[in-house]
Amino acid sequence: MTARRRVVRHDTTTSVTTTRPDSLAVEEPLEVRLSGKAFTVTMRTPGHDIDLALGFLVGEGVVGAAADVVTVRSLDAAVDVVLAPHVPPPDPSLERHVYTSSACGVCGSASLEAVEKVARFDTASDPVRVAPSLLVSLPDLLREEQAVFSTTGGLHAAGLFTADGECLVVREDVGRHNAVDKVVGWALREGRVPLAGHVLQVSGRASFELVQKARLAGIPVLAAVSAPSSLAVELAEDAGMTLVGFSRGGRFTVYTGEHRVDLPA
Amino acid sequence: MTARRRVVRHDTTTSVTTTRPDSLAVEEPLEVRLSGKAFTVTMRTPGHDIDLALGFLVGEGVVGAAADVVTVRSLDAAVDVVLAPHVPPPDPSLERHVYTSSACGVCGSASLEAVEKVARFDTASDPVRVAPSLLVSLPDLLREEQAVFSTTGGLHAAGLFTADGECLVVREDVGRHNAVDKVVGWALREGRVPLAGHVLQVSGRASFELVQKARLAGIPVLAAVSAPSSLAVELAEDAGMTLVGFSRGGRFTVYTGEHRVDLPA
Repeated sequence: MTARRRVVRHDTTTSVTTTRPDSLAVEEPLEVRLSGKAFTVTMRTPGHDIDLALGFLVGEGVVGAAADVVTVRSLDAAVDVVLAPHVPPPDPSLERHVYTSSACGVCGSASLEAVEKVARFDTASDPVRVAPSLLVSLPDLLREEQAVFSTTGGLHAAGLFTADGECLVVREDVGRHNAVDKVVGWALREGRVPLAGHVLQVSGRASFELVQKARLAGIPVLAAVSAPSSLAVELAEDAGMTLVGFSRGGRFTVYTGEHRVDLPA
Repeated sequence: MTARRRVVRHDTTTSVTTTRPDSLAVEEPLEVRLSGKAFTVTMRTPGHDIDLALGFLVGEGVVGAAADVVTVRSLDAAVDVVLAPHVPPPDPSLERHVYTSSACGVCGSASLEAVEKVARFDTASDPVRVAPSLLVSLPDLLREEQAVFSTTGGLHAAGLFTADGECLVVREDVGRHNAVDKVVGWALREGRVPLAGHVLQVSGRASFELVQKARLAGIPVLAAVSAPSSLAVELAEDAGMTLVGFSRGGRFTVYTGEHRVDLPA
């Protein structure tokens, strides 16, 4: 997951220049194919490619269980997925994102509708509750599991946790969305989708795309180290999800679904 | 560019819960159309939509000068661009990214070749030189220009500078790549593309996609606050660009093209 390279460092306070090897996060394209036909290309950190492809297909509403997939084959820079006969092939107009398939033009509410149209799991009724102490601990737990971050400083992370704080899986990638796809794809293979009762912690911001991916995997609680966007909050509200941001230094902000957080009265 | 919303904040060290309005960075989809036909959809922060569309087309190698565009029309959630008759329409297989058009399969070197194939400006021979004092000052200059960041904490920024440190334009967006597109689109409208002799400073990491966008706009020096990826470094090297990372606290790291940085002997 890292590449070595000679770099030049300079410190203007001391005027010292040093030349030394440095670690870089590897970024390479991966093509996701459906029965041999190209479906999407994503720039990703190599590793867990099958999970990335499966998780991406969950996030687009194409598959929702391990039984929806007949075979998955990892090639050099591609993953080929053969869907089960009962799975309708995705809309050909759906290229990179669910929201491009919206027929009524492109706007925020059309994007929200497009996601709800393909969502197959009920996140709104999920009865899970989470403790404030859990929410503030997750970013540190995520960082502890990040083996690569310290050497390259360039990777996003996503971690899947139970409401008791047990860490099930952590994945890293140069792309924030890829890290989430790798987590969801792992869960699909493990027969754990829908991920009712689980908490997904991500290292950066919460965009519409990340909420969409959590929504389609049936995850009721999404927590981000940094801020969510307006459309991320709207989608989380529509889906009855709990969206937490700015989990750091003992504090956090709840944007939607505060009924799942055990706040003192 | 911001939306207000009621949020719940909790501090576990004091057990205090407060409910108050908060500012969110707005995220909404924008469709880029070519003569009325959908070309791509991007999630972006509204504002400077025409620049975003034009800059995106520069980054894909579709246009390279203001004269390549006949009209640009901004609709509610779309921008329609009519290309000049002398501009070949983009390859229909080119959907979201230049690298998907590569005929020889998908790998890092195919991505590099695809970019070099559509690049029309010479970044390798650009004789510009930059001072270390300039490189360490740019992140602060960028932050000073960021009006929104302090209220939402959720926006990426890109700024275009001369080698003397004059700030020409700064743009912000929920998407790192959109901020760069908005800068390049502004420059296209101003008749400044190719951006020979300029420095582009971005707030986050340097991905392959960002180097591609700088390369296609003819920018010789790209500086990022955080780390570049392996493929970003490879593309910068192929293009003879100067790629700088980790510009912070008086220090910076030069990954490629150090001959343009006036380092003390």
